[in-house]
Amino acid sequence: MSKSYWIWNYGDYEIFHTMSLHLRREEQGYHRPPVWKISAPYVSIQFIKQFYCEKGYLICYMNGCGYIDIDNQRYGEKTRIELSKGEHTIKIFVSKTSGLPAIFVESDVCPSDGTWISNHFAGEFSPVGYNVFFNSVQRNPENFPFEYKNVLPISKEKINNGILYDFGTEYFGFLNITNACKNEEIRVFYGESKEEALDVENTYITDRVCGENTYRLKQRAFRYVYLKTLLDDIEISADYEYLPLEQKGNFRCNDELFNKIYSVASYTFHLNCREAFLDGIKRDRWVWSGDAYQSARINRYLFADKEIEQRTLLGLLGREPIEQHINTIIDYSLLWFISLYEHYMTYGDKEFLKRVYPMAKKLLEFCETKLNKEGFIEGDEKDWTFIDWSDIEKVGAVCAEQMLLIRAYQVMSLMAEVLDNGDKNLLEKKYEFLIRQVNAYYWNEEKGAFIDCYKSGNANVTRHANIFAIMYDIATKEQTQKILKNVLKNDNITKITTPYFEGYELDVLAKLGDFKAVEDKITSYWGGMINLGASTIWEEYDPKKCGIDHYEMYGGKYEKSLCHAWGAGPIYLFGRYYLGVYATSVGYETFIVKPNLGGLKEISGAIPINGGTVVISLDKEKLRVVASKPGGTLVWDNKSYILQPNKAFEIIF
Amino acid sequence: MSKSYWIWNYGDYEIFHTMSLHLRREEQGYHRPPVWKISAPYVSIQFIKQFYCEKGYLICYMNGCGYIDIDNQRYGEKTRIELSKGEHTIKIFVSKTSGLPAIFVESDVCPSDGTWISNHFAGEFSPVGYNVFFNSVQRNPENFPFEYKNVLPISKEKINNGILYDFGTEYFGFLNITNACKNEEIRVFYGESKEEALDVENTYITDRVCGENTYRLKQRAFRYVYLKTLLDDIEISADYEYLPLEQKGNFRCNDELFNKIYSVASYTFHLNCREAFLDGIKRDRWVWSGDAYQSARINRYLFADKEIEQRTLLGLLGREPIEQHINTIIDYSLLWFISLYEHYMTYGDKEFLKRVYPMAKKLLEFCETKLNKEGFIEGDEKDWTFIDWSDIEKVGAVCAEQMLLIRAYQVMSLMAEVLDNGDKNLLEKKYEFLIRQVNAYYWNEEKGAFIDCYKSGNANVTRHANIFAIMYDIATKEQTQKILKNVLKNDNITKITTPYFEGYELDVLAKLGDFKAVEDKITSYWGGMINLGASTIWEEYDPKKCGIDHYEMYGGKYEKSLCHAWGAGPIYLFGRYYLGVYATSVGYETFIVKPNLGGLKEISGAIPINGGTVVISLDKEKLRVVASKPGGTLVWDNKSYILQPNKAFEIIF
Repeated sequence: MSKSYWIWNYGDYEIFHTMSLHLRREEQGYHRPPVWKISAPYVSIQFIKQFYCEKGYLICYMNGCGYIDIDNQRYGEKTRIELSKGEHTIKIFVSKTSGLPAIFVESDVCPSDGTWISNHFAGEFSPVGYNVFFNSVQRNPENFPFEYKNVLPISKEKINNGILYDFGTEYFGFLNITNACKNEEIRVFYGESKEEALDVENTYITDRVCGENTYRLKQRAFRYVYLKTLLDDIEISADYEYLPLEQKGNFRCNDELFNKIYSVASYTFHLNCREAFLDGIKRDRWVWSGDAYQSARINRYLFADKEIEQRTLLGLLGREPIEQHINTIIDYSLLWFISLYEHYMTYGDKEFLKRVYPMAKKLLEFCETKLNKEGFIEGDEKDWTFIDWSDIEKVGAVCAEQMLLIRAYQVMSLMAEVLDNGDKNLLEKKYEFLIRQVNAYYWNEEKGAFIDCYKSGNANVTRHANIFAIMYDIATKEQTQKILKNVLKNDNITKITTPYFEGYELDVLAKLGDFKAVEDKITSYWGGMINLGASTIWEEYDPKKCGIDHYEMYGGKYEKSLCHAWGAGPIYLFGRYYLGVYATSVGYETFIVKPNLGGLKEISGAIPINGGTVVISLDKEKLRVVASKPGGTLVWDNKSYILQPNKAFEIIF
Repeated sequence: MSKSYWIWNYGDYEIFHTMSLHLRREEQGYHRPPVWKISAPYVSIQFIKQFYCEKGYLICYMNGCGYIDIDNQRYGEKTRIELSKGEHTIKIFVSKTSGLPAIFVESDVCPSDGTWISNHFAGEFSPVGYNVFFNSVQRNPENFPFEYKNVLPISKEKINNGILYDFGTEYFGFLNITNACKNEEIRVFYGESKEEALDVENTYITDRVCGENTYRLKQRAFRYVYLKTLLDDIEISADYEYLPLEQKGNFRCNDELFNKIYSVASYTFHLNCREAFLDGIKRDRWVWSGDAYQSARINRYLFADKEIEQRTLLGLLGREPIEQHINTIIDYSLLWFISLYEHYMTYGDKEFLKRVYPMAKKLLEFCETKLNKEGFIEGDEKDWTFIDWSDIEKVGAVCAEQMLLIRAYQVMSLMAEVLDNGDKNLLEKKYEFLIRQVNAYYWNEEKGAFIDCYKSGNANVTRHANIFAIMYDIATKEQTQKILKNVLKNDNITKITTPYFEGYELDVLAKLGDFKAVEDKITSYWGGMINLGASTIWEEYDPKKCGIDHYEMYGGKYEKSLCHAWGAGPIYLFGRYYLGVYATSVGYETFIVKPNLGGLKEISGAIPINGGTVVISLDKEKLRVVASKPGGTLVWDNKSYILQPNKAFEIIF
């Protein structure tokens, strides 16, 4: 029998799971939906397949209600239908008001797979969505394919009529309680920190159970669990829920702190890789486009999981009409374009690009409704100009947003070129114009830097716009040198306090070859958290703070996420600049390996290159590189060497 | 305590109930979703209320999950929250992935009512939707407020190991079976006709139950019920489900057949007035815009229920983006505009007009994407050019559609004038241009008629476009006279076979004063059905057919609806042309009463006039008119008389 999969209208799977996770946030006893529009899957779908057969049969299963139309004859689901010799047109109609309308067709001649087409009874027909995991009737695509592992606390301590458990590191999963007493109400306090779990008045996430001897609670994030119970022999464990991902990239060096940071960052990142890239595993568990942009960069050097990037891009984009910026944030709309392009460059999935481009164009059109008379993108009262949690002056059009818009136009023009759809020239004109405008309005020769905004007249300088200008090659060489001196290496310019923007800053410093600055910052900033006992990387870290003040954010005593994806930036830095691997054409058809020890004595590791791997080791005496596929060029000591696939290239110094 | 209502995001209630009913169709054992895009309510909503109070409290109940934010402090639902003295901003966030997100706030100072505003976390805030029926926490707005009456069959007959019940007339409701035997599987066959109920292989709607002594089945439409059962003492009844509507209009005359037709039409119509105007109560139970247009015209002379018209208009329009014609039918998009305008003229609800106009404009913009180079609206492969179930030549742009587009432009320009939004002039130019084009391309001087289409070169003439041309005053006086002779009174032009278009034809004949033709047609056509024993009016009637052939349609032996709303047209005709009442300015602020006996000896009745009633009686000797509100002008014998409110005006001949 041919292979069947659950099939759905393309994009609805991602929208369904993004919707579900966005509406799952709970805190302090209530649900907290996101502050932006939530897209839902279409409720009614038609699937079509045309084919010829000698004879055959089919049985259709539905996630939803509907019927099967074969050559204009109607049938119900779950019954075997015989097919005669000839051409057939099968239409299957299915609707579901909550969930993901989908079908599974068991057949020897027309199994449900990627050859079927569908639409929502409007718009063009296009190939359905499916996923090889959902290859049996029982594997309902509404149940996201996580895996589970039972984990036990590593320690237990009686405190104030209760028991504090430490699982040793953070987990996301279902807490199991056994040996409870039916009559006792047990209160459960989850903590990313010990302090949070014990501070029962202020714990962010709590549960309360009664009436049974055993419980399985909702999925929560925690390292510590404090149970208010008088029972001594109560027992707990957790079903850790995670996405099975193969770690394709790795990095080691002689600095054990760096190795520890790499490992903690990897674990932090893995916890946040789920239906999509989450920001943090405890609090929002939402998908934020800027966070996701950085996650995608990290992912490419660790798991290189194409699927999660595509799910994230589709889930963020949502459903037409586009009525607001992604997450309501201007920069997060713009980073979405850049992420799409970098995704395409990494994996070379042109089919995906083709499918997403029309909606990307609509998002760009939406952005262009927000241009002011100078051509700059500007927020109105509904838009959030985020950039970073930092004191950037945000009066009128903000420079950092323009840097992203320039890059967004550039990548859209590059993608238009790939798709050869005629949009390229106009997009090029737009970014060329915008670069001229940005230089005219934001470059301040006196300060030797781009200023935050021009409307206030303050000529305030922060790091952010200047970092983007270098990151996306918008600054000229001369401007870059000035920025380095006047901004990046200038201690009078406010320091970055989020790992999010620290990731961008270090990207730029590494790009400019300032490995010492990169290492100092990793040591002090990430190392700072590790030295405080962090087993996962935090949302924000301010070395000046003390004790539980570290856990405060957004006005909540423990509202800060202590396991935040954007903290995993060093994975990207080590892979991109130390092992030095990056694509130079679509899908790693060609790529550069340009290793750099920086201030280290010894580095080694592997980097995924879209279906292959490059393995690198470098110390003071020897460089060794093996790439598993062709297209690689080793750059070392200002010379280039062609890498032969699966053949070790060694240089002894 | 102040009065609280369930409140929701405006429009979502109508979209939710339209979605639900559209997805409820079942036949021959399977669900059958509509062939167009189904809109769903937004899944996540924010509600806002700002106010001052000395002190107060509130308790919020949610249909969905979420939280309450009072002055930036968060609370869960169902708890009493005390309010201190001062200004307060209350935001309530609620999400629900299936159903209607809504809230109910019990409070002495800020009860949930029409003063709250909401949006879907995007777009503008606007006043919430609510309905005075939903005035307690228990009355969940997802449960449509129908009423119920238990009805019993009027006869019972044992036939072929089963029992046939006749309820005397058609009902929609839940069948109850009592005194059944747990072990016996009972099969249930519903029929609008006796033949259908007994033809168990072909019955359109069936049920099958087993395992209990009593059953309550799903809502179905039926007059006859045939139970396959061996039990003699089994008993059935039905819970008739209906919308409680006050009959505000009525009509009687000396012709008992006409009185019977009026009464059967009224009942037929009432059965189809539910969440929205349905086409027929048995088969689709869908909302079709053309059917609904005619239903609205009928409603205005019978129930004058403003609410059902608004629910229908909103439900049909659905959610952005507009990707297809309403019901995929070109004429049904265009009739939607006309219906909106006639609705406004009848009830004068400017607030509703203001709310709907922006989406109406988007629908018109969508229609304009379908204009050909001559400026005519033309269907592509995704569009259905319906007009009527009749042999109209449909090559390229079809004339009847242009007539509707002209009227659509006209009514949009009239509504733009009411709202003073600057759209008027352009819309006027558009319809003036289109009238010229229609005359140039479709008027055939030789045939003295508008032809179906110009592309084929056949100059085929049918009644439809010509009827619209007169109905909407597009034809000149001279053209009108030619059409009357060459088309309407010409037996060589194919006759109308649906009560739908017959309604329009008779409207035009009555308008032109040909009451004899109207009466002849009502007698032969509607009378024909009555004489065949119809207790409700059918979807289509062809006097040439015999026996059960009358029940066949769309290739199904019993697929024709025998209780179809569009059959109720005579209610409109009697009210509009015999009692002769119609509005001449918005909301019946002024109106005409122009009674006409036609060929009858005696007519009497009442017509609702937006908050008032006109009572009329007329025979060969006397005319008597009483209007309960000012603004009326009686037109009689080419003279006009001002009607004084509540004062009988009598003329003795």
